[in-house]
Amino acid sequence: MNPGVFAFENKIWLLIRVAERPIQKPGLVSLPIYTPEGKTNVIEFKEGDPNWDTSDPRKFENGSGTYLSTISHLRLMCSDDGVHFRKPNHIPDIIKSSGPYETYGIEDCRVSFLEGKYHLTYTQVSESGVGVGLMKTDDWVNFEKNDMIFLPHNKDCALFEEKINGKYFAISRPSGVGLGGNYMWISSSPDLIHWGNHICILKTRYGKWDSQRIGAGTSPIKTEHGWLEIYHGADEDSRYSLGAVLLDLEDPTIVIARSDAPLMEPTEAYEQEGFFNNVIFTNGHLVDGDKITMYYGASDEVICGATFSIKEILENILSETLA
Amino acid sequence: MNPGVFAFENKIWLLIRVAERPIQKPGLVSLPIYTPEGKTNVIEFKEGDPNWDTSDPRKFENGSGTYLSTISHLRLMCSDDGVHFRKPNHIPDIIKSSGPYETYGIEDCRVSFLEGKYHLTYTQVSESGVGVGLMKTDDWVNFEKNDMIFLPHNKDCALFEEKINGKYFAISRPSGVGLGGNYMWISSSPDLIHWGNHICILKTRYGKWDSQRIGAGTSPIKTEHGWLEIYHGADEDSRYSLGAVLLDLEDPTIVIARSDAPLMEPTEAYEQEGFFNNVIFTNGHLVDGDKITMYYGASDEVICGATFSIKEILENILSETLA
Repeated sequence: MNPGVFAFENKIWLLIRVAERPIQKPGLVSLPIYTPEGKTNVIEFKEGDPNWDTSDPRKFENGSGTYLSTISHLRLMCSDDGVHFRKPNHIPDIIKSSGPYETYGIEDCRVSFLEGKYHLTYTQVSESGVGVGLMKTDDWVNFEKNDMIFLPHNKDCALFEEKINGKYFAISRPSGVGLGGNYMWISSSPDLIHWGNHICILKTRYGKWDSQRIGAGTSPIKTEHGWLEIYHGADEDSRYSLGAVLLDLEDPTIVIARSDAPLMEPTEAYEQEGFFNNVIFTNGHLVDGDKITMYYGASDEVICGATFSIKEILENILSETLA
Repeated sequence: MNPGVFAFENKIWLLIRVAERPIQKPGLVSLPIYTPEGKTNVIEFKEGDPNWDTSDPRKFENGSGTYLSTISHLRLMCSDDGVHFRKPNHIPDIIKSSGPYETYGIEDCRVSFLEGKYHLTYTQVSESGVGVGLMKTDDWVNFEKNDMIFLPHNKDCALFEEKINGKYFAISRPSGVGLGGNYMWISSSPDLIHWGNHICILKTRYGKWDSQRIGAGTSPIKTEHGWLEIYHGADEDSRYSLGAVLLDLEDPTIVIARSDAPLMEPTEAYEQEGFFNNVIFTNGHLVDGDKITMYYGASDEVICGATFSIKEILENILSETLA
C-alpha cells in the first residue's frame, strides 16, 4: 500500500509499503518485531486473551505497551506505462528497517527530487515512538541515511522540491497529547537535517470529512497560483478522503485556499473494504503539465491510480474559497 | 511555581511561573484564554455540568476540546542572598504570552547562559498544542523572540550551555501517541533555531518512581565525569520526584549513569499537598563549585529551595551503576 512515486531511468517507479505478519498458528496471535540489528522476533498470545485489546486491526495493546499487528518495509516496482508494474532486475528491490527507531518497521515513504537527488522521507516506528526518517540516493543502490529529522509523534512528512528564499521547507503532521490535534505544520531548514520555525498551517475541521486527522500527501506541486498540496483527511469514523490546500508561492506558511468538499472519497468496493475499511491515502504522484497521475493505497490493502487536472483542482478550491 | 534561575547584576533571580484564573462566581467555573493579540477571554460553565470533565484540577475537557483551568505567565523576582526575594524595581517584572502558540499561556521556563546571553526555553501552550519556545536577552529589557523550536507535543527543554564538537545540544521531552511514551531525547543544532539528529536517551522505567513520564530539569552541569542532568520522574499516581543522569562529555547522546533511587521525593507537607499533590519539579538551579542551589515547585503551588553536593550525586549514581 501507500507508495512513494518517482521517475528514474525513463521508467515510473513505486516505492511500496509492504505490511507483513508471521503465518498465524491456530488459536494464537503472532506479532513481528525487528531488533535494532535487523533480526525478526515474534511475540505470541492466545486468541481472545483478555489482557490484549485487538479491537483495532492495525495495533494490539496489552497493559505494558502497544504493538503493531504487522511490520512494514519498502519495496520497489517499476513500469514503462505507469499501469503495469514489475520487480526491477538490476537494483535491489527492498529497503528495510535499520537501527533502534525502526524496530516496528518503516512506512509511507514520500520520494522528493531536489538538487539532483531523491530524498526519501518516511515514518520510523519503534517502541520509542513514531518519527520521521530521511534517506538520500541518486542511483537507488547507495543510500545516505540520516538520523531522525522530526521527533515523535510525527509522520506524513512532505518536502518542497526547491528552496524558497534560501531555505528548505517541509510539511509534517505532529500529534498532540491532551491539547492540540492531528494538524499539518510547516517547518524550514538550512540543510534538510535540522528543522525549526514551526508554524501550524492546517487544522482538522469539526463536523467535516477532515475532522479527526489530516496529513500531507507528497511534495507540493508548484503552480502559478501557489503550492498545491493534496492531503488526506479522516473523519470520526476513520474514513480517509483526499482534499487540497494552496500555499503562497513566496511564503508557504500562508494558506490561500482549501478544499471544502473532498477531492476524492472512498466510493469503490476496493476502497471501502479491505484490511482497514474506507481508506484512500496518497503519498505519491507524478506531474506532467496539467496532469497529476496519483497513486494511492485503498483500504490499507491495494494500490490504485487516479488522474487529476491541476487546473480543475485550482478552479475548484479557489472558487470555494472566494464563494 | 517552577522557576527558571539565573545570576544577573550580582543578584540571584527567579523567573517564576504564575498560574492564574478568573475570580470564580458562585455555581460557575471560569476558564481564561488569551487571544493571539494578548486580550483575555473567559469561558464559563455551570459547576457539575455533565458535559465537562473536571476530574483533573489542571485541565477541563468537554466534547470539543481541552482547556486549562489556569493560564500561566512568567514573573521576575530578585534576591541578594538566594532566600529572600523581591520584585525588581528597575526592569519590567512580567513576561507574557504573545502570538498564536501561547494563547493558553507560557510555562516552566529554563534560563540558560551561553555565549553572553540568557536563553529562555519555555513551554508554549495553545489549542494548536504544546511546543517549545525560545527567547534571548542580555539585559532582561529587550528580548529576541523566535518561532517555535520544537513541534508539539514537546516540553521540558534544557539547553547545554556550551557547544560540543561545534554543535549546540538540547534535551527535550516529546510525547508519543499510541506508540512511544514520555521519554527524554537529545537533539543538536547549528544555530539554536533548527534542530535535528534526534536520539532517545532516557525512557520511563516500569514499576519505578519514574515509570510514567520523565523530563529534563535545566541545563546540564559540566563535571569531570560527564554532563550531570537532574530530571523529574512521575509514577503511575503522578507523584513527581527528582533523579539524576550522567551523559558523556564528548558525546552527550551516551548515557553513563542514572539514578536508581530518586535523589529527592515529596516528603514535606507542602510537597505532598497543594494545587496538585505530591509534586516536586525543578527547572532551575545555580552552581557554585561543588554546590547546587536548586529551586523547585512543590505541589504546583509554592517555590522551595534545596542544596546538593555534585560530588555526592556523582558518587551515588556512579556506584549504583557500577553495582
